[in-house]
Amino acid sequence: MSLQDLILNIAKGARDASRDAARLGAAVKNNALLAMAQGIEKNSAFLKKENSKDLELAEKKGLQKAMMERLCLSDKTIKSMANGLREVAALPDPVGEITGMRTRPNGLRVGRMRIPLGVIGIIYESRPNVTSDSAGLCLKSGNAVILRGGSEAINSNLAISKVLSDACKTSGVPEKAIQVIPTVEREAMLELLKLEEYVDLIIPRGGEGLIRFVVEHSKIPVIKHYKGVCHVFVDESADMGMAEKIAFNAKVERPGVCNAMETLLVHENIAKEFLPRIHKKYTDAGVEMRGCPATRRILKDVKEASEEDWSAEYLDLIVSIKVVAGFDDAVRHIEKYGSLHTESIVTSDYSSAMRFVNEVNSSTVLVNASTRFSDGGELGLGAEIGISTTKIHAFGPMGLEELTTKKFIVFGDGQIRE
Amino acid sequence: MSLQDLILNIAKGARDASRDAARLGAAVKNNALLAMAQGIEKNSAFLKKENSKDLELAEKKGLQKAMMERLCLSDKTIKSMANGLREVAALPDPVGEITGMRTRPNGLRVGRMRIPLGVIGIIYESRPNVTSDSAGLCLKSGNAVILRGGSEAINSNLAISKVLSDACKTSGVPEKAIQVIPTVEREAMLELLKLEEYVDLIIPRGGEGLIRFVVEHSKIPVIKHYKGVCHVFVDESADMGMAEKIAFNAKVERPGVCNAMETLLVHENIAKEFLPRIHKKYTDAGVEMRGCPATRRILKDVKEASEEDWSAEYLDLIVSIKVVAGFDDAVRHIEKYGSLHTESIVTSDYSSAMRFVNEVNSSTVLVNASTRFSDGGELGLGAEIGISTTKIHAFGPMGLEELTTKKFIVFGDGQIRE
Repeated sequence: MSLQDLILNIAKGARDASRDAARLGAAVKNNALLAMAQGIEKNSAFLKKENSKDLELAEKKGLQKAMMERLCLSDKTIKSMANGLREVAALPDPVGEITGMRTRPNGLRVGRMRIPLGVIGIIYESRPNVTSDSAGLCLKSGNAVILRGGSEAINSNLAISKVLSDACKTSGVPEKAIQVIPTVEREAMLELLKLEEYVDLIIPRGGEGLIRFVVEHSKIPVIKHYKGVCHVFVDESADMGMAEKIAFNAKVERPGVCNAMETLLVHENIAKEFLPRIHKKYTDAGVEMRGCPATRRILKDVKEASEEDWSAEYLDLIVSIKVVAGFDDAVRHIEKYGSLHTESIVTSDYSSAMRFVNEVNSSTVLVNASTRFSDGGELGLGAEIGISTTKIHAFGPMGLEELTTKKFIVFGDGQIRE
Repeated sequence: MSLQDLILNIAKGARDASRDAARLGAAVKNNALLAMAQGIEKNSAFLKKENSKDLELAEKKGLQKAMMERLCLSDKTIKSMANGLREVAALPDPVGEITGMRTRPNGLRVGRMRIPLGVIGIIYESRPNVTSDSAGLCLKSGNAVILRGGSEAINSNLAISKVLSDACKTSGVPEKAIQVIPTVEREAMLELLKLEEYVDLIIPRGGEGLIRFVVEHSKIPVIKHYKGVCHVFVDESADMGMAEKIAFNAKVERPGVCNAMETLLVHENIAKEFLPRIHKKYTDAGVEMRGCPATRRILKDVKEASEEDWSAEYLDLIVSIKVVAGFDDAVRHIEKYGSLHTESIVTSDYSSAMRFVNEVNSSTVLVNASTRFSDGGELGLGAEIGISTTKIHAFGPMGLEELTTKKFIVFGDGQIRE
């Protein structure tokens, strides 16, 4: 079979499966998710054996240590995959919810019913646990999923998908509701991205390079986030202790993730007091600081920030610091250099807090809290399939509801239009 | 200025304007909409003069009569444009609505606030009233809009946009919140479709050719509908009189629109009784019928439907008719040949009604009502900017809410993540 036919078959199979998946009751889906979790645990030896093939190849290729760690299926990763599926089983079923039912003057009752999107393609890099996490969320939301993981994880991904499909088979879920593309060729991904007739949405998860490649080539709608250049603005009225705690946590607790802060904005009226305090904490934690001229007049040993620093996503223990003339200056900076991901203000002033929430249109806007809370789990979505920094369909962390849409439903008793 | 720079300037101007437009209060927006309506009426002589240039050129080019009618700005069209703006002014402002505010275990209050999408590009064909309708809806929802109408309406569109911009200027709305691309070159549209950094959404309105062209070339998300192949399924338990009325209305009341029915599905158990009745009404109204073999055994003079007929959007007094073996057969037919637009069942059976609503995932699903109700105004949206038959972001008729998204807002008192 040609590569083109292979991908077309997978996509057509997914479309057919999606119709049945959309009609599954919550009990069937939840039982399948529990069976999948059990399958993952029972087959841990098989999963680790297949994963070791990937690890050997990766070692030969000289993959970086961090990448090797992401690729590895340890007992802990396997346990966490299984538990992830159980958590999704425990979430409420989004499908079938009816909202806004109202009666029109002609007697028609009109409302909206939540339905699955249909077929979702997930394109991701090295971490094989994305295979089971995504499959679980797509199944629970009544969608069929096509998974295309990184070439370095192909054996692990196929093994996970086999275990999941076996569990589906015995649970009344259509077999082709979960499929992994069984080949590592890039051409396969390109074929998939053409099939707008069979695939409703593509979610790429990975580095900016992968995401730009997918956006460039997809005819199917893509929901993505390129990067997280998150800001904390310490207002002049901020509680100093709180500001210190938040600016430290946002940068240091886990610098390698997209909701970590990259730029600290400090109101000029409190810069002299605040900057030396946070400087000490950052220095103790080994954080490299890069500042604007005003920052460097207060913190003499801080390097100068270049223009590029203001839009950099360091994903590292580096922070850029800018002294701003006030609220408007801070918002202008965020609008110019931000990535619409997450911004936080530390303030004790009611009007500044309200203006920040109203005027800053990033996907998550916080008052007096760390940017690190911009996460599906922390915001109460139960689980997260990705983050969107574009405003179409979803904005911010995406949970089960973001894998659905709403149709109009109308109950009449013979109405016609005249 | 090069064409590329011209379009880039328009897009950048729109992005800047969108930030201010997002913060406008409802009163400012509503006053601007009323001023726009008044401007349209006051300048009707100017609008008609500019429109006459387009009409002259169109006549020289030998444009079809129906196209000429769509292009013409009569006193009636001008009045209706002004009234449309007044109706939008009267709708509630969607921006700023906060929903789902809940308290997390750590005390964070998390909710979602509705915000504008940002910059919306509308690409449309001959009808100049789309200029003011779209501008009004985009302004009310706090967005900036870039309008690119058909080349045959360029003078009319520029005149309307001048009148609207003048009204904005005196109402505190940023001038560049409403812009018309002042050139007819196709290259200008292609340039616009590249600017994903400045434009958040493209909505094409027009024929399938235009829409496919836009989808093919856009890097910006596109919300669209290609066509409406709408079905009415007359179930065996249907009230015959009601079925006759609905099947007639759905086809005949306005055959040239997307929510008109194209295919009538009839349960085999009532075909012998129902088909002759509807046949008489259709014949009297001059409707051409094309039927499946079973239909033609009952209606001898009906032509045979070809395979293409089942997916045809006639937009005319033509209907295809199929006798189906039952509910499942009807749903399978809709899934195979439908366009996800609008489907209706006529039934008196509770279970068939519920199954149809639950299982048919087209954008509008009706029980015992004409497909012609699939329309923003009729479904209670107040106004309509278009219809989506893809499930991402919006599905079905789109109103003001569909021109917005939701960001997460979080109120804390010093929370950090540990």
